[in-house]
Amino acid sequence: MSLGEFDLIAKYFDRPARRAALGIGDDCALLAVPPGMQLATSCDMLVEGRHFLSTVAPERLGHKALAVNLSDLAACGAEPLAFTLALALPHADEIFLDGFSRGLLALADVHGCELIGGDTTRGPLNICISVFGLVPVAGAGALLRSGAQVGDDLYVSGVLGDARLALEVVRGTRSLADGDFDAVLRALEKPQPRVALGVALRGVASSAIDVSDGLLGDLHHVLQRSGVDAVVEVDALPCSVVLRAQPLTVQRLCSLTGGDDYELLFTAPPQHAQQVAAAGIASGVALTRIGRIVGRSGAASAAAGVAQTTLVDHDGRAVVHADASFDHFRT
Amino acid sequence: MSLGEFDLIAKYFDRPARRAALGIGDDCALLAVPPGMQLATSCDMLVEGRHFLSTVAPERLGHKALAVNLSDLAACGAEPLAFTLALALPHADEIFLDGFSRGLLALADVHGCELIGGDTTRGPLNICISVFGLVPVAGAGALLRSGAQVGDDLYVSGVLGDARLALEVVRGTRSLADGDFDAVLRALEKPQPRVALGVALRGVASSAIDVSDGLLGDLHHVLQRSGVDAVVEVDALPCSVVLRAQPLTVQRLCSLTGGDDYELLFTAPPQHAQQVAAAGIASGVALTRIGRIVGRSGAASAAAGVAQTTLVDHDGRAVVHADASFDHFRT
Repeated sequence: MSLGEFDLIAKYFDRPARRAALGIGDDCALLAVPPGMQLATSCDMLVEGRHFLSTVAPERLGHKALAVNLSDLAACGAEPLAFTLALALPHADEIFLDGFSRGLLALADVHGCELIGGDTTRGPLNICISVFGLVPVAGAGALLRSGAQVGDDLYVSGVLGDARLALEVVRGTRSLADGDFDAVLRALEKPQPRVALGVALRGVASSAIDVSDGLLGDLHHVLQRSGVDAVVEVDALPCSVVLRAQPLTVQRLCSLTGGDDYELLFTAPPQHAQQVAAAGIASGVALTRIGRIVGRSGAASAAAGVAQTTLVDHDGRAVVHADASFDHFRT
Repeated sequence: MSLGEFDLIAKYFDRPARRAALGIGDDCALLAVPPGMQLATSCDMLVEGRHFLSTVAPERLGHKALAVNLSDLAACGAEPLAFTLALALPHADEIFLDGFSRGLLALADVHGCELIGGDTTRGPLNICISVFGLVPVAGAGALLRSGAQVGDDLYVSGVLGDARLALEVVRGTRSLADGDFDAVLRALEKPQPRVALGVALRGVASSAIDVSDGLLGDLHHVLQRSGVDAVVEVDALPCSVVLRAQPLTVQRLCSLTGGDDYELLFTAPPQHAQQVAAAGIASGVALTRIGRIVGRSGAASAAAGVAQTTLVDHDGRAVVHADASFDHFRT
């Protein structure tokens, strides 16, 4: 192999530090945090065959690896600052590295998020990114999962379910015309983290999470931490025209439990409805009200402390759907 | 498999946030950085068969995974604050998780370094830790690789080469009595990061790095970034009695290029010699002066910008040794 570890870093990843006090090349990177701000951090590990298909273009993989992390910052309302990349590769494949680094750094540049360090090693393909953002300590601070209140409206950004529909086509359980498949594959492989929306929702939303494991599963995290229940109007769930053309059972499977959407799911009090709409317009993202937060129902669930989501159709009738959110150790 | 992703986190890794503003369980963790301090961060990815033996006890692996990261903080003079853990596991092996989490969290507690988040997924065993520390912005701030000056003394903490000797025994190229093997295996599997020493060297050392890839290779990084050369007295290199009993060629191979030592290699001006000694005593770590920093020699190397290390014996005679520092993509 001609390309060594330090050459690899220098060729594909090392760029001069701009926002960081100290970037790549020392034992640690250094980040200054301005007064009144705190650091938000998250990390995601992506494994071949589990988080991405072996057929994915390296450029899209680079994009997605950072996008899923930026989506976590968005869910907190944090402004991206920097990230580190740890990368295990079976061998120093320059075609892969060229595409991967281009996709990664292009998205980083869009969000002013700087690569400040990391690690490279030989091993089964594994991508682990840690991302750093800034969020005010007080006032309109970080969006948390724990803030949903009874009476709040429940919203989601963009459309749901296209990524899962793409996966079903790849698995051979559904088929689509080429153009439609390209569109949903793009949703799977090149998600757009809702960073500007997250920042705009600070002080407006009462809670937020990004939809990575499926709407119902991620909503459950919010309800569980907030101690509330929810009613979701399944007919209100925003879907693309491609997904809308699928049978209703497929639409619901994909939009309710699909995962890999990287949209923001958030709550806000009804009196913030206009500010919510303004945040959507300012960030150029469609927002849809999909339900509301209600008090903990039923003695049984309250005793067990388990949050409940009730699904209803446009006439308010209960809809039955098996919750099957994604769990990496159960599927 | 009975243990799900969220159960796994709750059972083995989730503890209440103490120092972080927000710990495990939201999209991001939140870290407050006190005025006058900046955040130091580093990440290391450990892959089975490359960074650790498949036979290692899970508790030692948990220890080492954090230790190598704390060692990076130590090399910057940063005080540990928090860390995140991303873990890919072939399956949710509770015996592994129990030992691993115990070793990991025991070392974390020793250094007041809190687990604030991470990711778990199924995949080939891979451990990626990002660590966060605090270091003053100004004054006696972060120790960098770039500060070595001509005339500085060169020091190393502890002893070198035991980890490599252990590896050679495992590979079958050397043999040791059981007690001796246990001692060097402990150096390989349970390194002690020099955190207190790193903090004590702020304002005293002019540059520092931790010895992870081998003394000569890591020294080369310091020389390269500082624009200087070095003279190392090979007979001064601190070795354990076990390594000292090996042939001279083995001693030199292990101590000069062994790697996995996690000792601090640092430079300080001669007038700081007493402060260096005091830092060693205060942190309970033996320190050894192993050479000195000299100006860039030879037109050829200066033209190429390549740093040179000259090895000499106790009589000042040149010693020839092939530099073979560890490179993950070349070995």
